[in-house]
Amino acid sequence: MSIQIPRGTQDILPGEVEKWQFIEKKARELCERFQYKEIRTPIFEHTELFTRGVGETTDVVQKEMYTFTDRGDRSLTLRPEGTAAAVRSFVEHKMYGDPNQPVKLYYMGPMFRYERPQAGRFRQFVQFGVEALGSQDPAIDAEVIALAMSIYNSLGLKKLKLIINSLGDKESRLAHRSALIQHFEPRIGEFCQDCQNRLEKNPMRILDCKQDREHDLMKSAPSIIEYLNDESKGYFEKVQQYLTALAIPFTVDPNLVRGLDYYNHTAFEIMSDAEGFGAITTLCGGGRYNGLTQEIGGPETPGIGFAFSIERFIAALKAEAVELPVNKGIDCYLVSLGEEAKDYTVGLLQRLRLAGFSAERDYLDRKIKAQMKAADRLNAKYVAILGENELKENRILVKRMETGDQWEMNLENFIEKFLELQQ
Amino acid sequence: MSIQIPRGTQDILPGEVEKWQFIEKKARELCERFQYKEIRTPIFEHTELFTRGVGETTDVVQKEMYTFTDRGDRSLTLRPEGTAAAVRSFVEHKMYGDPNQPVKLYYMGPMFRYERPQAGRFRQFVQFGVEALGSQDPAIDAEVIALAMSIYNSLGLKKLKLIINSLGDKESRLAHRSALIQHFEPRIGEFCQDCQNRLEKNPMRILDCKQDREHDLMKSAPSIIEYLNDESKGYFEKVQQYLTALAIPFTVDPNLVRGLDYYNHTAFEIMSDAEGFGAITTLCGGGRYNGLTQEIGGPETPGIGFAFSIERFIAALKAEAVELPVNKGIDCYLVSLGEEAKDYTVGLLQRLRLAGFSAERDYLDRKIKAQMKAADRLNAKYVAILGENELKENRILVKRMETGDQWEMNLENFIEKFLELQQ
Repeated sequence: MSIQIPRGTQDILPGEVEKWQFIEKKARELCERFQYKEIRTPIFEHTELFTRGVGETTDVVQKEMYTFTDRGDRSLTLRPEGTAAAVRSFVEHKMYGDPNQPVKLYYMGPMFRYERPQAGRFRQFVQFGVEALGSQDPAIDAEVIALAMSIYNSLGLKKLKLIINSLGDKESRLAHRSALIQHFEPRIGEFCQDCQNRLEKNPMRILDCKQDREHDLMKSAPSIIEYLNDESKGYFEKVQQYLTALAIPFTVDPNLVRGLDYYNHTAFEIMSDAEGFGAITTLCGGGRYNGLTQEIGGPETPGIGFAFSIERFIAALKAEAVELPVNKGIDCYLVSLGEEAKDYTVGLLQRLRLAGFSAERDYLDRKIKAQMKAADRLNAKYVAILGENELKENRILVKRMETGDQWEMNLENFIEKFLELQQ
Repeated sequence: MSIQIPRGTQDILPGEVEKWQFIEKKARELCERFQYKEIRTPIFEHTELFTRGVGETTDVVQKEMYTFTDRGDRSLTLRPEGTAAAVRSFVEHKMYGDPNQPVKLYYMGPMFRYERPQAGRFRQFVQFGVEALGSQDPAIDAEVIALAMSIYNSLGLKKLKLIINSLGDKESRLAHRSALIQHFEPRIGEFCQDCQNRLEKNPMRILDCKQDREHDLMKSAPSIIEYLNDESKGYFEKVQQYLTALAIPFTVDPNLVRGLDYYNHTAFEIMSDAEGFGAITTLCGGGRYNGLTQEIGGPETPGIGFAFSIERFIAALKAEAVELPVNKGIDCYLVSLGEEAKDYTVGLLQRLRLAGFSAERDYLDRKIKAQMKAADRLNAKYVAILGENELKENRILVKRMETGDQWEMNLENFIEKFLELQQ
């Protein structure tokens, strides 16, 4: 009996994987230009990191984590997101003491959430994300947003909508919190159990509830924008000014919230506007989290970041019918006839490859016609044909597939001459 | 209290991660030329895949797996190696029906083994590996070895030793198996418990035992080479002929064995010969496994592959004192003086980056001197300085750091002119 892939996960196969490679390469290039450096943290962390760094009241921590005990009796969890680990690493390696500040990091890799599998949702998915730690210049907020938009644009996505909001500083949030409790408390019995639990712990998360989204108290709930103090307001204005300077269109949405206590100031999402993209339209989410580093045991450090899933990115490319330039043929296919000629192509193939060419030959003892077909399927630019006679006479027949031209070349300096053909 | 990284794992940080990126990029490039395509399988699989695909009697399966039960009560295991999953995917997606045969795959990603942490050994480590499925042409065995050697050489490793062996076909192995049982049985009581268990199940693995390696019966044990039948001998000779044609030096070592039943014919290892590399000298291991696809539930398919860990690869680079060309400075650092000039650099920076340059500015409100120092630390090729006066007069001061030359440029077409500077 054959063994299947675990439910909710997927293999990424040749034919599809080239898109991933292309996206990752572009993202890396842009990170290099923006001076974000890669960090790689383990696939699993101590469970406590996520209860503290993602938040005990979140669905992710309560319902979706892959938590297990290792052979040394530690509680470990497959990472459900990337920020907590990046900040853990920042603290553990004392990057706050690095002379280059802010510390600008990016990561790219699999994340894990035990969710009900459905179209576009996987239990293992790949996130790309960045974190800028150590600066509270509104220009870094704008830079982080500009980086996300630049990656999207550079890959050809056009139907994008950026929404931003400010969650204010601690003072503003406390004032808003009180107003929310006052607003919901009298009728909290009409809300779901989760919301009832959230009222005291984290009333802002009520605004995020999917179950109660139609309740009339939702629309009339006090907006954080009304409670921003002068400093928070000034900060938010500066971010908007910079986005305008960067020619990045945006919409302010006072309902865009982040439920965790250590989120503050800038919050943003990038959505796809493409028709037929379906229900899930948020591609990328990010925001400022000045309290997180302390939560994880480090010194007070401002931070901001974003993350997006590559799976959803690829879905957006599809929805906009963007074709990435990933289909390339091989440079040369070696066709051979007869045992000696076949043996000879072993070395010839290696020389072509070491000279920089993508090249292939037959490994199935196929007849010449079947070899020519194989070359066609691989979309070979050139086919070089070596028979017993050619080998004896030190020559090889070369065919340019696009035009059908063919001519003989000297076998001895074939690589040299083949290099010249490319010019 | 701060949260630590899990024992036996490591963060790969900026400064070190560039080596990984470089190695991975080179490996990808060479796979492209050799026409191996990437496949990405999940981090975890059903546990059964590894008990069947790696082997129930192996240390990996018995002692080292990260096995856990998910919320749906499935037994899952973090993959300890890459071949089983690649073959599972090959079967599940019916790649044996693809017109392009053999199917040539590569993978690169984290693997997990619960081992005692020690220098050079991690519980999470990154493996790069390839698998060629669907051909039993000895030329593909040579190609696989050539690919491994080409990756190593292209990254500057020179002190390498390739050892090869043949484990023969089924008939040869059965004959060898009988001879081994006959050889060890009379004195098996002198061997460790593991070896006693192996005698009937898998006597070849006794030859691999670390505990009993000094026993006098080890040296006198019958070698597989003596039991190769004509076909197996012919196959092995052809592989050697091709390696010679590829100018790849090798040593035949009849003691190189693989314990699993479905390994056969070619087995190889690449070791580091570098002084001071320490006890662990095997960098890369590989071999032919014609029975594995059937074991995993697919049709009979010949296969061969190899894998190496990037951690150990980097240790070998260090032992040979090879420096990878990864330290690059940034193209331009923008220094600004005064609020308006500072604001202006937000847009200027973005234009530089979109034009292809790696560029940076200050996000800490630093004085001009501290900004110049920051530019130095980032090894900036150029520094562009913008003050209030320059901004008013639409100019910017540019300094080439290598020579100390400085001159003024027009601010309006700065990007255009900066592009010209690079030619």
